[in-house]
Amino acid sequence: MKKIIVDTYGADIGHVEIIRGTLDAVMEIDDLHVVIVGDERIIRDMMKTYGTDESRVEIVHTDKYVTNDDPPTCVFKGKDDTSMVMSLDRLSKSDDVMGMISAGNTGALMVGSIFRVGLVKGLMAPALSTAIPCGKNGLVCLVDCGANVECTPEDLKRYALMGNAFMQSLLGEEHPKVGLMSVGREDGKGNTLTKAAFELIKPLDLNFVGNVEGSDLADTELDVVVTDGFTGNILLKNTEECGRAALRIIDSYSDGSEACKNIRNAIVEKFDFNTRGGATFLGLKKTVVKMHGCAVADTVGACIRQIIRIEDRGFSAKVAQAIAE
Amino acid sequence: MKKIIVDTYGADIGHVEIIRGTLDAVMEIDDLHVVIVGDERIIRDMMKTYGTDESRVEIVHTDKYVTNDDPPTCVFKGKDDTSMVMSLDRLSKSDDVMGMISAGNTGALMVGSIFRVGLVKGLMAPALSTAIPCGKNGLVCLVDCGANVECTPEDLKRYALMGNAFMQSLLGEEHPKVGLMSVGREDGKGNTLTKAAFELIKPLDLNFVGNVEGSDLADTELDVVVTDGFTGNILLKNTEECGRAALRIIDSYSDGSEACKNIRNAIVEKFDFNTRGGATFLGLKKTVVKMHGCAVADTVGACIRQIIRIEDRGFSAKVAQAIAE
Repeated sequence: MKKIIVDTYGADIGHVEIIRGTLDAVMEIDDLHVVIVGDERIIRDMMKTYGTDESRVEIVHTDKYVTNDDPPTCVFKGKDDTSMVMSLDRLSKSDDVMGMISAGNTGALMVGSIFRVGLVKGLMAPALSTAIPCGKNGLVCLVDCGANVECTPEDLKRYALMGNAFMQSLLGEEHPKVGLMSVGREDGKGNTLTKAAFELIKPLDLNFVGNVEGSDLADTELDVVVTDGFTGNILLKNTEECGRAALRIIDSYSDGSEACKNIRNAIVEKFDFNTRGGATFLGLKKTVVKMHGCAVADTVGACIRQIIRIEDRGFSAKVAQAIAE
Repeated sequence: MKKIIVDTYGADIGHVEIIRGTLDAVMEIDDLHVVIVGDERIIRDMMKTYGTDESRVEIVHTDKYVTNDDPPTCVFKGKDDTSMVMSLDRLSKSDDVMGMISAGNTGALMVGSIFRVGLVKGLMAPALSTAIPCGKNGLVCLVDCGANVECTPEDLKRYALMGNAFMQSLLGEEHPKVGLMSVGREDGKGNTLTKAAFELIKPLDLNFVGNVEGSDLADTELDVVVTDGFTGNILLKNTEECGRAALRIIDSYSDGSEACKNIRNAIVEKFDFNTRGGATFLGLKKTVVKMHGCAVADTVGACIRQIIRIEDRGFSAKVAQAIAE
């Protein structure tokens, strides 16, 4: 049995769409059981409409939620009845649950995850990794993409190890290609941080290709790109926006032909990662996936499939082992 | 009279194309005089073929050049007979020259510029700024885009002032919009560096819009984006590569129709800045423009026009004044 918790609040599109996506996933994914945390009346009504198998759905009722204006530390006080905190508590207390997904406030989700789910031994903070569809071979893991804007060389070393474990689990590939984001490909290029990180990552038992540069993301053969959360956040948002800028150009010149449609679809396929997945916290005892605020119903299924895929290959255990070594 | 020095060596495409671009520029730009530093025999042959007005061309002969494998400090020893060093020397000694362009080794050009042309008072190093065509209103100045990978808050403050002076000169716009690259738009977002820089930039007499984020470059209303050279270099290369990735998609699906051609042209217009201009060092006593290694003949004219445009509006003096204040 695969059991996943879904926090239904936090997406811009509204909780009803997230509930809909969750019920769709129950229909589509064999053997999936969900714990839906949200408005019970609405969930029950929708289950009736959809004819959802009730034995595969557990409802945890609340209509309270953390907002994007709440500070990250809000999870410590007065938010115990919100969907995010109730989801995290349920995750920490249930041995049979594979992971949880939430589209809520990233900072609150990170702090809540640390204190309610817990970090693997040896870590002070989780990293946030996004699997973006820019690679020549499909997905590329960008880590850290925004959780830690101030990093040490040791942090980058841990990101390399955890990103590697993540992509091993996601791709089933024994030796993912790992690169360190810098200002040039030659050894010795970079700032103080990346130069020191390079020396720490090089001796690790990884398929480390060395330094990579800004042009090595959009059509890359890499599987993991390691960087600090400041650079990673900017890189991620820039890549997404370049895709949107290209789409605006295509839409303004398209004549509706098959060729123009194909171009548009391929650009969406390459650059629109917001609606098709989530960011995974690396270094937690259990898997928490943060859906983007602009998640749509289909995003839920994509995130659930991702959790099943990585946990089937023992992702959380792999990360704990990598950090312990 | 407008006089510009052209170092003909350093471009991947070869010096002959750079000479051709220079002679084209002499034909096209009224009142332009050039000092061409390169192989005299080839230059004279091409001038004959082109029927170039000899009174507007001065040739400084050399067939020696700095390579991309030379270390930046090579300019100190044994390179006095190279086209780059001879160009820099000519620039420093000539009061009637507006500036110079070179496609050579960036590090060597930077070090050579500092020691042979000189910095404006108050600076320890120049910044490298690229005017990229991503903006809603046209060009956006990204500074620093790679000269200084380790920056202080005071450096970012100076980049804001110099980027402002550059865009005032380039656009003839009194109050360019200046943004500080960070991980979110709200005040207080960022790392230690940008938070401190924010406090230093805010009180300046600039049209400072505050923090901007990774998605604020590709289709921006900003005129100046301030960032450290590590982030700027990665951002610049990522943006270019996203454009190239979009072009590869377009080329693989295009049916050759007018619509597909228009889409392609607009993407090139937005993202292909390599061949259409250069990066300007900010903070030197005279203007030095670094053409990209992949410069083509037309790039020369574009860079010459840029120097004329900014120097006609007193760019170098504006920068010196901004730093002095």
